[in-house]
Amino acid sequence: MFTCSKERMAEKVRVFSRFGATGNGGITRLALTPELLAARKEFCLRCEKLGMNIVTDDMCNVYATLPGREDQPAIAMGSHLDSVIRGGNYDGVLGVLTALEVVETLVSEKLETRHPITLIVWTNEEGVRFPPSMTGSGIVCGKFDKDRCLAVKDMEGVSYGHALEDSGYIGDINNRLALGKQAAYLELHVEQGPVLDSEGLTIGIVEGIVGMTNHTFVVSGQAGHAGTVPMKMRRDALYAASQIICMLHERIPAINPEIVFTTGHMEVEPNVHSITPGRVSFTFDGRHRDPVMMQKIWDVLDSIPDTVAGCTIERREHWSREPIRFHDPFVEVVEKNVAKFGYPSKRMYSGAGHDAQYVSSVLPSAMVFVPSIGGHSHCEIEKTLDEDCWKGANILLNTLLDIDAMI
Amino acid sequence: MFTCSKERMAEKVRVFSRFGATGNGGITRLALTPELLAARKEFCLRCEKLGMNIVTDDMCNVYATLPGREDQPAIAMGSHLDSVIRGGNYDGVLGVLTALEVVETLVSEKLETRHPITLIVWTNEEGVRFPPSMTGSGIVCGKFDKDRCLAVKDMEGVSYGHALEDSGYIGDINNRLALGKQAAYLELHVEQGPVLDSEGLTIGIVEGIVGMTNHTFVVSGQAGHAGTVPMKMRRDALYAASQIICMLHERIPAINPEIVFTTGHMEVEPNVHSITPGRVSFTFDGRHRDPVMMQKIWDVLDSIPDTVAGCTIERREHWSREPIRFHDPFVEVVEKNVAKFGYPSKRMYSGAGHDAQYVSSVLPSAMVFVPSIGGHSHCEIEKTLDEDCWKGANILLNTLLDIDAMI
Repeated sequence: MFTCSKERMAEKVRVFSRFGATGNGGITRLALTPELLAARKEFCLRCEKLGMNIVTDDMCNVYATLPGREDQPAIAMGSHLDSVIRGGNYDGVLGVLTALEVVETLVSEKLETRHPITLIVWTNEEGVRFPPSMTGSGIVCGKFDKDRCLAVKDMEGVSYGHALEDSGYIGDINNRLALGKQAAYLELHVEQGPVLDSEGLTIGIVEGIVGMTNHTFVVSGQAGHAGTVPMKMRRDALYAASQIICMLHERIPAINPEIVFTTGHMEVEPNVHSITPGRVSFTFDGRHRDPVMMQKIWDVLDSIPDTVAGCTIERREHWSREPIRFHDPFVEVVEKNVAKFGYPSKRMYSGAGHDAQYVSSVLPSAMVFVPSIGGHSHCEIEKTLDEDCWKGANILLNTLLDIDAMI
Repeated sequence: MFTCSKERMAEKVRVFSRFGATGNGGITRLALTPELLAARKEFCLRCEKLGMNIVTDDMCNVYATLPGREDQPAIAMGSHLDSVIRGGNYDGVLGVLTALEVVETLVSEKLETRHPITLIVWTNEEGVRFPPSMTGSGIVCGKFDKDRCLAVKDMEGVSYGHALEDSGYIGDINNRLALGKQAAYLELHVEQGPVLDSEGLTIGIVEGIVGMTNHTFVVSGQAGHAGTVPMKMRRDALYAASQIICMLHERIPAINPEIVFTTGHMEVEPNVHSITPGRVSFTFDGRHRDPVMMQKIWDVLDSIPDTVAGCTIERREHWSREPIRFHDPFVEVVEKNVAKFGYPSKRMYSGAGHDAQYVSSVLPSAMVFVPSIGGHSHCEIEKTLDEDCWKGANILLNTLLDIDAMI
């Protein structure tokens, strides 16, 4: 068993927290902004110092490669450096920095690998500036139409395509990740949920990523005067929406308590205190690891009546993704190393999407989770202990070495 | 029985619909704007032609008086000329125009009254530009603090006080409506609800105005990631709010089906589809004619638990108004005249607030309702048939003449 440097790991997190620092403990580092490019520059400088060769692809994804002893496809590790608005110092960046620390350990400890090791920084994972999320990895893995994505404009009217060109990171399409050039992909990420922290665990052995289905309910009633319309003549869209939300909460947990679902966004019209709501729309996001359970979520959605409280109910699907499973032999290697270190851990599914989800359709892949204190993520108080970052890097290092020997 | 002119009545509605016309059949004529002042100017010109003497008070309320045979306090009639944004051609303005038509009929038919007749145009009834509503009549009747109201600014930063000064209608505070100067007040208004229209009735004999109580519920939970937080660890503020809305709909109609209540405005934070709502606030507006029922609404509000779905529930009262009853002898005069004309009618309470509500605390008052087709009001499709406008004016005319004889 080899270990990374706890001090170097903490220094990396500290230094990268400065790029886009909000002054309130977090960062705003949207895709391809000057703050993001400053973080990339620091990453590239550090890679060059370690003797790595850097190329980029047509989506400005960065590939920094340390040569291996043999002429083999590379083992890749990576994540993203962009954040949400007022996000934290760990989401994404910790996957890049633990991978960098792994390479720094290989170099400083003179641990030569058979395979080249490639660190990848994916572009625009969060999708805050250029929706949707994960287009850097998604386009490379054939999940999105590139031209459609590149036409998306940010709040200031700058297109994604233009921002890519202006970044100075545009490279050859032939540099894209591909089976044959790479043979495996590993990604460490903060859990972004409360499970590990609340159960006192250090490592999440990620078996896969849940399926997701996204919908909007549109409830159409009749706006009316708060005083003059008798209750029995009302068609109150907010009352109908409230009933539907309560129905979802009765019906879905009854199927399986591990299904998670969220009604996160709601629009009320006209949204005036003295007028009964005439139209309400709200989103539904449902997730589970098992395709059978995903189908049962659909069954509940289909069970919602067409008419509630005199209002007509319509539902539109936005997008759905099947659950994915990571490469079982790699998951077992992660598990074996966690056991060797004696870190308290559990097998789990990721409830959030990650670049590894798309990469796993191209390369055998696995993920490692470290705890998010209090489950907080996508906010400035997002925090993972230095100790846990280091332990995560140790698992990544030893998993890499085992995979290097096994493939 | 005397009757007004159907043609003159229709012409008035048609002409006044031009001031602030939206081009979509309605008007936007906010308080003290050029559109509103144009309508006032037309009103004043018509009053002057009828030989009326015009004064204004410190709130720019307009008083146009036709002399009476005797040295008596005046009988007043009025309403407002301002509208909501994209409002209709009847709310408020019809009360002014029917009263004007009554005076025009008195003059043209040479029907001399014992009492002077004063037409009043109240300032800022809707309160859209300068909240709250009904400050023109409310300040005169001692319901609001004038200085506080005058400091309120519109969306462009113009204060109510400044807009009053700039209007050219500022007058002497001694011209305010007061018992002694006036002896009675009548106001015709569109119902703004569906009751008369749906029951095929022409006239609403308004017995009083419902009590109202306005609150905001604030539901505090915990925002969290849509995928990573297990259901049992969630504190979803929108689910809690939905449960409360359903509780209100179960408990309040069970007390009395004539109580009306509305949850019209809701704010969801952070309102992102992939984040469980951490905070939701929504308004509650409850109304009934009976103070005992108003107390029962309060009892239901008090019965809502402090904690729902793990979220803490707080409630703030904004304002409440006791129900008011109009002057019974005047209500009976209205009823008697409706019977004489044979117009289908019913006694009813107003579910909306009107200037007459404040005036009734100073002068014996009564109101007459005419139907709103489909119950639509505060929107461009608001409509009352020419025939019904004229019938309303007939009731107003004969009620005025009866009161002139009786007081």
